[in-house]
Amino acid sequence: MTLLSQFEIQEIDQTVLLWLNDIRQKTIAAMQQRLDVHEKRDNRDLVTNVDQDNEKFINDKIRHFDAEAHIVSEEGFGDHNQDMNGRVWFVDPIDGTMNFVKQKTDFAVMIALYEDNQPVLGWILDVVNNVVYHGGPQIGVFANQLRLKPPIDDNLSEGIVLLSGARLLYGMFGYDKIAKAALGYRVIGAAGPSFIRVIMGQAIGYSSKMMPWDFAAGQVLAKTLGLSVSDIDGKALDMLSSNIVLVATNRAHRDILTLHQS
Amino acid sequence: MTLLSQFEIQEIDQTVLLWLNDIRQKTIAAMQQRLDVHEKRDNRDLVTNVDQDNEKFINDKIRHFDAEAHIVSEEGFGDHNQDMNGRVWFVDPIDGTMNFVKQKTDFAVMIALYEDNQPVLGWILDVVNNVVYHGGPQIGVFANQLRLKPPIDDNLSEGIVLLSGARLLYGMFGYDKIAKAALGYRVIGAAGPSFIRVIMGQAIGYSSKMMPWDFAAGQVLAKTLGLSVSDIDGKALDMLSSNIVLVATNRAHRDILTLHQS
Repeated sequence: MTLLSQFEIQEIDQTVLLWLNDIRQKTIAAMQQRLDVHEKRDNRDLVTNVDQDNEKFINDKIRHFDAEAHIVSEEGFGDHNQDMNGRVWFVDPIDGTMNFVKQKTDFAVMIALYEDNQPVLGWILDVVNNVVYHGGPQIGVFANQLRLKPPIDDNLSEGIVLLSGARLLYGMFGYDKIAKAALGYRVIGAAGPSFIRVIMGQAIGYSSKMMPWDFAAGQVLAKTLGLSVSDIDGKALDMLSSNIVLVATNRAHRDILTLHQS
Repeated sequence: MTLLSQFEIQEIDQTVLLWLNDIRQKTIAAMQQRLDVHEKRDNRDLVTNVDQDNEKFINDKIRHFDAEAHIVSEEGFGDHNQDMNGRVWFVDPIDGTMNFVKQKTDFAVMIALYEDNQPVLGWILDVVNNVVYHGGPQIGVFANQLRLKPPIDDNLSEGIVLLSGARLLYGMFGYDKIAKAALGYRVIGAAGPSFIRVIMGQAIGYSSKMMPWDFAAGQVLAKTLGLSVSDIDGKALDMLSSNIVLVATNRAHRDILTLHQS
């Protein structure tokens, strides 16, 4: 199959929205039951039965729908991709598992599709508020059915920046300088909900160290809306390893890169 | 008038819920218009036409309903109380004005009633999600009509703590030690939404430097649910000046006081 047409992209978008409708219902039903929570690397890195069930469900749907594609996903049911040739799907079955377990809010389900390393479509499902942020460069970005406009291009000093709490606390990546230069900062504790706030113009930027499934969908949506996405040194993100990701308005992105290099 | 009866307290609760229904509609309508934003002390301390209109509306309702009482409120339409004798109302017409202006979420409207320095009733209106957290020691605590149970008494190391971002960033009040000892920390940027998360058991504690209108309602609800509320040294809060407020589960409160004294 060659590069996807706009018609095919719209069909894919509609198909994944149906999957996410099922995922939302399954996730809400599971939240009424007792969660089965396990530690991965340590007690701050959690996985639940919902993460695993959602990933199995989504990856199974993808494999039936697009058998040639590869899948990069968090909980071990994906492939071990060596490159970004062809179509690659990214799946984060519960982004913000700590928030999911402890706060029952500020978590998301994220899916993205890239073709030959180019962003095609991204989906961020805010389960609790029943909103899917979705789209890509061919079709625009939507909050459910509502087409989103590009956020206002505010400077760092004019807006709220979102940062990884742990990295700020331990003095990493110059986050203290960024926080002090911004009008204010907030710590949400999950990538999807943070990307949503930047896409919606509620925050002027967000930075954290992330794995590809954490930023793949957000990058598609943010770039489509004209926001800047790079690593903290201004380089393009590596889609197959961890990156210190920076998404921001163009002006705040420039301000943060300048601060980081000073 | 002597101390309020349970019947009178229920009547007051219902009356204030009606005011808050009006306030919610007025606030949402105003959010569709252009906000008139002014700086108070500096560009991080904001006031809008909505703060002022809401405070005038609420204070006017209180003065008609309870002419003997005094009012302590944020935007200058209250009294200059010298003591906590008799009935004192606390009004925060928009708590989290920065979030209101920039994020359009994570703000609240808060009202509280004390009698002879004792908590009687508190109301925290989450405008965006259309939930009022309300109640007091005589009637219990409710999220709209749903009666809330006391949160699980988790330790600091078992839960997420909410902290004032500015104070953490500038190394104040030992917040870095608290953040490191907790399972995780978040910065929400407003008192009402932070109190809500502690009351709902989503976070094990919250600390910030606050004025009385920031903590008056939250203290009523938190104490009614068996949570601990004090200043960071464990002393009772002064209802007529600023305090470094700590609200937490009993176990996390003990953990944080121990950390703070070490």
